[in-house]
Amino acid sequence: MSGGMDSCVTAAIAARDYDIAALHASYGQRTEARELRSFHALADYFGAFDRMVVQLDYFSKIGGSSLTDTALPVHDADLASKTVPNTYVPFRNAHFLSIATSWAEVLGASRIFIGAVYEDSSGYPDCRPEYYDAMNALIHAGTRPETHITVETPLIYLKKSDIVQRGVELHAPLDRTWSCYRETDVACGVCDSCALRLRAFQEAGLDDPIAYAVRPEYVRV
Amino acid sequence: MSGGMDSCVTAAIAARDYDIAALHASYGQRTEARELRSFHALADYFGAFDRMVVQLDYFSKIGGSSLTDTALPVHDADLASKTVPNTYVPFRNAHFLSIATSWAEVLGASRIFIGAVYEDSSGYPDCRPEYYDAMNALIHAGTRPETHITVETPLIYLKKSDIVQRGVELHAPLDRTWSCYRETDVACGVCDSCALRLRAFQEAGLDDPIAYAVRPEYVRV
Repeated sequence: MSGGMDSCVTAAIAARDYDIAALHASYGQRTEARELRSFHALADYFGAFDRMVVQLDYFSKIGGSSLTDTALPVHDADLASKTVPNTYVPFRNAHFLSIATSWAEVLGASRIFIGAVYEDSSGYPDCRPEYYDAMNALIHAGTRPETHITVETPLIYLKKSDIVQRGVELHAPLDRTWSCYRETDVACGVCDSCALRLRAFQEAGLDDPIAYAVRPEYVRV
Repeated sequence: MSGGMDSCVTAAIAARDYDIAALHASYGQRTEARELRSFHALADYFGAFDRMVVQLDYFSKIGGSSLTDTALPVHDADLASKTVPNTYVPFRNAHFLSIATSWAEVLGASRIFIGAVYEDSSGYPDCRPEYYDAMNALIHAGTRPETHITVETPLIYLKKSDIVQRGVELHAPLDRTWSCYRETDVACGVCDSCALRLRAFQEAGLDDPIAYAVRPEYVRV
């Protein structure tokens, strides 16, 4: 649970059927401290029976992403682009899911929920549905015979605007979430993550409850 | 590269065809400091052009293994047992391979070598061949379209005694390796890992160059 909108709505979906243990990763991403604050606010809201925060310091050693390497600029969004943006952190979600799987196996948990979004996403390869099929096969092959853990991606085929609507229907605390890649006080409104979020609220005809430095209109081409 | 015999022989195989970047993980395993010393000695020997040591502190939070949880005892080996031993660290190799994949994608490396052994192993689920097939599918699905990384497991179908012989043929520096799960000065000779190693040398008819507190005869039933 990053503390962003997608993980918030995913947690709201999971919480209808399951008791929740909440996992968060700090990996040297630019807005690490701000995200952690949102994570704890969300875990409080959902009454998580356990929570774990892991420090993955090695991502800044590995580099290769503007999200973890401050020498690289965070570009303004180009939502029409078909290439992988430079905020892509190489193979990042496999790290999160590996930690979640190890923890789930010890807890005896049966499901791992992750807020991956495919169709309407930034174009990260580790948000594709076939990636999660492969992860489920890996978990099946790599855990004890009596362990049965499935990764669930309830948002993967949703448009971002549908996610906003779903969150509002479920009374998900979207005011506690954080999405911006750049700032930690008031969201910038123009990075990839802000652009996707603002466009989603605009398409859903709803008002985003958090503050922005600027709020451009993101009209879908 | 843990610093053990299998990763040493695997590195010797990789070094015939590739320049090597060496990755080691400290994850709160009992003999962490001793393994790290062997890792550096091996990376020196193989002339690694880059090396990375990562700290995975969260494994001791997760627990569930006698290898990372000092409250659980390390049992003496029972090589005839068919169950997963309590030294199994839940889903461990997925963490190592995820880090290796992220690093490989940034380095532009094409191969990841890991010394997993299936047939003659401790019975860890994440040493099965189908596990590595699943990992390769995951890497294919979860990295950039232009990235082509393959995990290689050159030892996976070998018997441990064949690994010893292969290592000797390749002049692999087995005297620099460390395998024991228990001690950090002189290997105990009776934990799972020592037992598998000693039996391998005995079956190969070769002398293990490292010191042991005791050297039982491990006759295969």
